[in-house]
Amino acid sequence: MSGRLYALGIGPGASDLLTVRAARVLGKLDVLYAPAGRKGGDSLALSIVREYLGEQTEIRCTHFPMSADSAEKEAVWDEVAAALSAETRAGKQVGFITLGDAMLFSTWVFLLQRLGRPDWLEIVPGVTSFAAIAARTQTPLAMEQQSLAVVSCTAPEDEIKQALANHDSLVLMKVYGRFARVKALLADAGLLDRAVMMAEATLPGEQCWRQLAEVSDEQPLPYFSTILVNKQWERL
Amino acid sequence: MSGRLYALGIGPGASDLLTVRAARVLGKLDVLYAPAGRKGGDSLALSIVREYLGEQTEIRCTHFPMSADSAEKEAVWDEVAAALSAETRAGKQVGFITLGDAMLFSTWVFLLQRLGRPDWLEIVPGVTSFAAIAARTQTPLAMEQQSLAVVSCTAPEDEIKQALANHDSLVLMKVYGRFARVKALLADAGLLDRAVMMAEATLPGEQCWRQLAEVSDEQPLPYFSTILVNKQWERL
Repeated sequence: MSGRLYALGIGPGASDLLTVRAARVLGKLDVLYAPAGRKGGDSLALSIVREYLGEQTEIRCTHFPMSADSAEKEAVWDEVAAALSAETRAGKQVGFITLGDAMLFSTWVFLLQRLGRPDWLEIVPGVTSFAAIAARTQTPLAMEQQSLAVVSCTAPEDEIKQALANHDSLVLMKVYGRFARVKALLADAGLLDRAVMMAEATLPGEQCWRQLAEVSDEQPLPYFSTILVNKQWERL
Repeated sequence: MSGRLYALGIGPGASDLLTVRAARVLGKLDVLYAPAGRKGGDSLALSIVREYLGEQTEIRCTHFPMSADSAEKEAVWDEVAAALSAETRAGKQVGFITLGDAMLFSTWVFLLQRLGRPDWLEIVPGVTSFAAIAARTQTPLAMEQQSLAVVSCTAPEDEIKQALANHDSLVLMKVYGRFARVKALLADAGLLDRAVMMAEATLPGEQCWRQLAEVSDEQPLPYFSTILVNKQWERL
């Protein structure tokens, strides 16, 4: 069997929200690369997929620094991309897992930049966190002629304002550490009562806030916190 | 066992790109509602999930008219919502399947409007068509501070232009019947060489166009055709 590299989107958090294809691929891997939040720390992604792994699978937890030092980050991406390529070329079935979908706000894309488009690469799409939040909060993302913007709260304030003005619905990702600022922007746009915030959707620690006006600016939030805004949807 | 209604996003097309949760739910349903393109016609969604159904499952194909007559459409939504509610209240395990994700450009949302938020309802998120297209074409959706807009080509031209100007990447859905107009908008924005078009992603009839400048305005397209634009991604 020739080597193959699978970039697997494993969905928002619950183990049964990854795809049947991802589950089948996980069961036949020789090597699995799993991102870890801290050096030597646990991997949330690994805990989600563990039940699907075969006994033969070697696990390599990889820490990607959040550092502002781009040289440090690029060195890690170079190193992991080279390792993925080498193991695959050696004939192994290699997996790289990523929360949500692999092509949306994922470290995987930095590895893809380095790997190019080899014929031994397959990307398996996953359920995004915002689709899970829409389902859990029963808030539609878009319908008919509406438009949806997916914005990172790390973006410049003007871009967030513009998106709030121009689109029917919005997903505001990476709220962690920026809630007070985002809440103020939503208030300015008159959209606080059209917004819902969810943390750790579909995980055991899932939390939901439906009245953002009443949430303190100092509310401690988990790292995975997202706001969904739908201007057109009448709350029921 | 008390009745339960499941709105199931079944993903972009390939049978193994639905979630493990959706597959498990499908296996225990008493009744499955499947949307059909034409009255009495086949249901693409049904063909995708058929392998997961149990023998006990009764299938009800439901045609939702594309009519411009909103009274006609609303009558069908009222009728289907009432039927879903009645069967669930009678104690059955009821499923309603929808291509892609249930909360994004799906008829399901019109049924949800009518059902409200009963505690017997569960929405299961799915992989969107655009996540599948990103994976198949190896084109990222967004990274870091970038933003993504998801727009229907049925939207007013000015809105599409504005989205093309304001976002790093874009998903242009519902291209069918509107390709010449959308191609002209992309050419005006200087984005033709940053766009990729895919039809029937992950289905046996999948087609991909990477050089939109060379595609004729009269190119016949399947109904499920989508364009993905990423301004920041260097083609490899």
